[in-house]
Amino acid sequence: MPSLEFFRLKSRAEVLGLYSRFAPVGMEDLELMESGGRVAAGDLAAPEEVPAFHRASMDGFAVRAGDCFGATPGLPQYLDIRGEVPMGEAPGGEVGPGEAWRIATGGMLPRGADAVVMVEYTNEMPDGTLEVRRPVAPGENILHPGEDVKAGEVLFPAGRRLRAQDLGLLAALGVTRVEVHRRPRVAVLSSGDEIVPITEKPALGRVRDANVYLVADQVREGGGIPVWKGIVPDDYAALKAVLAESLLEADLILISGGSSVGARDLTLKAMQDLPEAEILVHGVAIRPGKPTILADIGGKPLLGLPGHPASAAVVMQVLGRPLLQRLAGITEERPLWGGTVQARLSRNLAGATGREDFVRVRLRPDQEVLWADPVLGPSGLLSPLVKSEGLVVIPLGVEGLVREEAVTVQLF
Amino acid sequence: MPSLEFFRLKSRAEVLGLYSRFAPVGMEDLELMESGGRVAAGDLAAPEEVPAFHRASMDGFAVRAGDCFGATPGLPQYLDIRGEVPMGEAPGGEVGPGEAWRIATGGMLPRGADAVVMVEYTNEMPDGTLEVRRPVAPGENILHPGEDVKAGEVLFPAGRRLRAQDLGLLAALGVTRVEVHRRPRVAVLSSGDEIVPITEKPALGRVRDANVYLVADQVREGGGIPVWKGIVPDDYAALKAVLAESLLEADLILISGGSSVGARDLTLKAMQDLPEAEILVHGVAIRPGKPTILADIGGKPLLGLPGHPASAAVVMQVLGRPLLQRLAGITEERPLWGGTVQARLSRNLAGATGREDFVRVRLRPDQEVLWADPVLGPSGLLSPLVKSEGLVVIPLGVEGLVREEAVTVQLF
Repeated sequence: MPSLEFFRLKSRAEVLGLYSRFAPVGMEDLELMESGGRVAAGDLAAPEEVPAFHRASMDGFAVRAGDCFGATPGLPQYLDIRGEVPMGEAPGGEVGPGEAWRIATGGMLPRGADAVVMVEYTNEMPDGTLEVRRPVAPGENILHPGEDVKAGEVLFPAGRRLRAQDLGLLAALGVTRVEVHRRPRVAVLSSGDEIVPITEKPALGRVRDANVYLVADQVREGGGIPVWKGIVPDDYAALKAVLAESLLEADLILISGGSSVGARDLTLKAMQDLPEAEILVHGVAIRPGKPTILADIGGKPLLGLPGHPASAAVVMQVLGRPLLQRLAGITEERPLWGGTVQARLSRNLAGATGREDFVRVRLRPDQEVLWADPVLGPSGLLSPLVKSEGLVVIPLGVEGLVREEAVTVQLF
Repeated sequence: MPSLEFFRLKSRAEVLGLYSRFAPVGMEDLELMESGGRVAAGDLAAPEEVPAFHRASMDGFAVRAGDCFGATPGLPQYLDIRGEVPMGEAPGGEVGPGEAWRIATGGMLPRGADAVVMVEYTNEMPDGTLEVRRPVAPGENILHPGEDVKAGEVLFPAGRRLRAQDLGLLAALGVTRVEVHRRPRVAVLSSGDEIVPITEKPALGRVRDANVYLVADQVREGGGIPVWKGIVPDDYAALKAVLAESLLEADLILISGGSSVGARDLTLKAMQDLPEAEILVHGVAIRPGKPTILADIGGKPLLGLPGHPASAAVVMQVLGRPLLQRLAGITEERPLWGGTVQARLSRNLAGATGREDFVRVRLRPDQEVLWADPVLGPSGLLSPLVKSEGLVVIPLGVEGLVREEAVTVQLF
C-alpha cells in the first residue's frame, strides 16, 4: 500500500466554481409534445399575441355595458336577444344598442359589445327579452387581445426547464417544435477487483456492484442518459482503455473508485495519462466524500466518486447533480423550489473538523413541528441512506449543531 | 343554450374519497436498472444479509484491540506486520497476538482480528514493525454481518416509489429483477368545435389545442404514459366513439371539455350512455375548476377537465395527480416531501364563497422571508400560470387570507 498522498482538500464551493469551464451539451430540435422537462437552448419568444381577439371569459350575453347601468333584481334592465355567437366562429353580426347576443366562455365578442353579463344574473323571457339583474362594467368578463401574451415577448429564457404549463402556452401560440439541449450522456462505471456483477453470488471478500445502479438512477432522475460501462478491474491498461472509450461516447464520466488507496492511485494515473487530462480536484472537504476526484479531460468532466455506495450517493447529490445541471444547460436563476424543507434537529450533532459534514436525516412530523432525525451509521452502509429523506449540512468551522436547532434539509 | 343545471357541488375531500373505488393498474417484471422511479407491486424483502462478512470500514491494519491498549504518540505500541488482505479475496491467514495485517476499506477482516486501526494513527518502521499511536476499541472501524440489512427484512413495502439509493441496496443484495406496477396509460383528449390543432392558424373565434400539451405533460411528470386521442368535435356520436375507444386503450381518460354549457352537456350525455357508466361528480367546490366531472365507466375513471387551460392545470394538480397516484399503486404513507414550501402572503386575498379557492403564486425570497406573490388574472389566461410556482388554497368557509399570513404553497 503506497503511503497516503497529502494534497490540499478543496471546499465544495471551490469545486462548484470549477464547473463553469465545462460547456453545456449541444442542441436538438424536438416536437413540442416531447419537450416537457427539457431545457430551452435559446430564448423562446411569442410569435403572436394571445388571445388573438376579444373573448368572453364567462358564459352569458354580450352587451353594451351602458345598457345595463343601474340594473338590480328589483329594477332590472330589459334587452333584446338578437343573436348567438357560434363557438369557434366569428359572430354573424353586431350588437346594437339595447341588444344582447348569447355567448359562451371562449366565444368571440361581437362588434358593438363591450362586456359580457353572466348568465347567472339574467332571465330569458318567453318573448325573447332578456332580463338583466345586475350592472356590468365595460370590459367585464372579457379577455383582451394580447392580455395573456404580447407578440415578440420572451416567454422563456434559454436555460429554462420546460414545465407542463409552459408547453400549454407554447401550444396556444402555435409553436410546434422547440430547440432544447439534448440530454447529457453519462458514462457510469465501477472499478475495483472486489466488485462483481449483481447477477453473481460474491465469493468471500467480494461485493456486488451496487454503485452503478445508484449512480445511474441519479443520472436518470437528473435528466441525463446513463451509459453503463460495466466493472473495470484494478488494472492500469483496462482502466485507461475504458476511460478513453467512455470519452468518445459520453459528455461526463462518473467512475466510482476502487475503495483502497492503491486502487485510487491507479485510477488517478490512468486519468492523468489520457490526452489533455488535468486533475482539478483530488479530495474535497466534505464528509462523506473526501476521496472525490474531478478531472478535465479534453474539455469533458470526469467525476471520481468514493467506492462506498452511501458516500457515492452523497457526492452525487452534492457535487454530481450540479455538474449534470451545468452540462444540461440549466441556467435558471430561480432556485428549484421544493429541493429543501425547513426542519428542527432532534439531537445534537458534532461536526467534522475541517470538513463540511453531510448528515442523513429522516423527517418526522410531530405536533406541527417537522423533526429531522439523524440516521447515523458508517458510510459503508446503505440502509441508513434508504431510510433517510435528505441531508443536513454542518458547515465548515462549526463545532456542531444543537438539538432543536432550525436546519435546512436538502431532499434526495 | 340549455339552462344551467343545478347539482350539488362536491368538496375536494369528497372527490378524493371516491378514488379508492378504482383499482391500481397491473404489474410488470423489470430489470433492476429499469425500475428507478417505479412503484413496488409487492413487499421487497432482503434475500440475504449485508454485509455478508466482517469488513473494514477504514484503510489501516487489522489487529487485536487488546494489543493496542494504552497506545499514545509518546508511548506507542509495536506490532508485527504479518500479512495483507487482498481486496476482493478472503485473507490468507489469521491475525495472531502482537500481529497486524494491512487492510483496505471494504476488505474482509482476517480471523483473530477484532478491530481496524486507521492508517493515520500508525507508522511503518523499516524493519516491518508497525507503530500504533492510539488505542482502538473492539469492533472499531468494522462493519458486522447483517449490520446493514438482515436476511428476510422487508426493505420496501408495496406501494413504495423506488429511489436511486433503493436500487443500490437491492443491487447489493443481488436482486436483479423487481415486480412493479406498470405505468398507467392515460388517454388525453380535447373536445370543442372551437379547438384546432396547434399546427393550424386558427380562424377568427377558434383557438389552438393548448390543453392536450399541458395535460399530457402533467401525466408524464406524474409517471403515466399519455396517449393522445386528438380533438373531438361537439358531436354526440363522435364523442361516444372516441370515449369507447379510449376505454379499451387506457386506464384513465382525461377529457378537457368544451367550454360552453351546451358542449359540457353533450360530453356528459356521451359518457352516461357508455356501458356501466356512472357519473360520480358533476361540479367541484373549487375555484378554478368548478365544472370538473368524475365518472366511473366499467371500473375505469374518467376525469372531465375544464376547457380553460389555466383551470385545467389547477384541476390536474389538485385532483388529477392524486388519481394518477392511486392508479399507479403509490400507497406510501409518508408524504412526498418537497411538494410544498412555507411562505408569507404578500397581499390580502379574498376567498370565493362556498368554494376552496386556489390562487397561483410566485415565490420571492427577500431578506430571509420567502414571499408568496399572488399572480392574478382570469382563469382563461395561461401566462399567469407560467409565471407562478405553485398554488395557495383559501379554505372553504374562510373569508380570505391577510397580508403576511403564513401559507403553504403546493408546488407545481
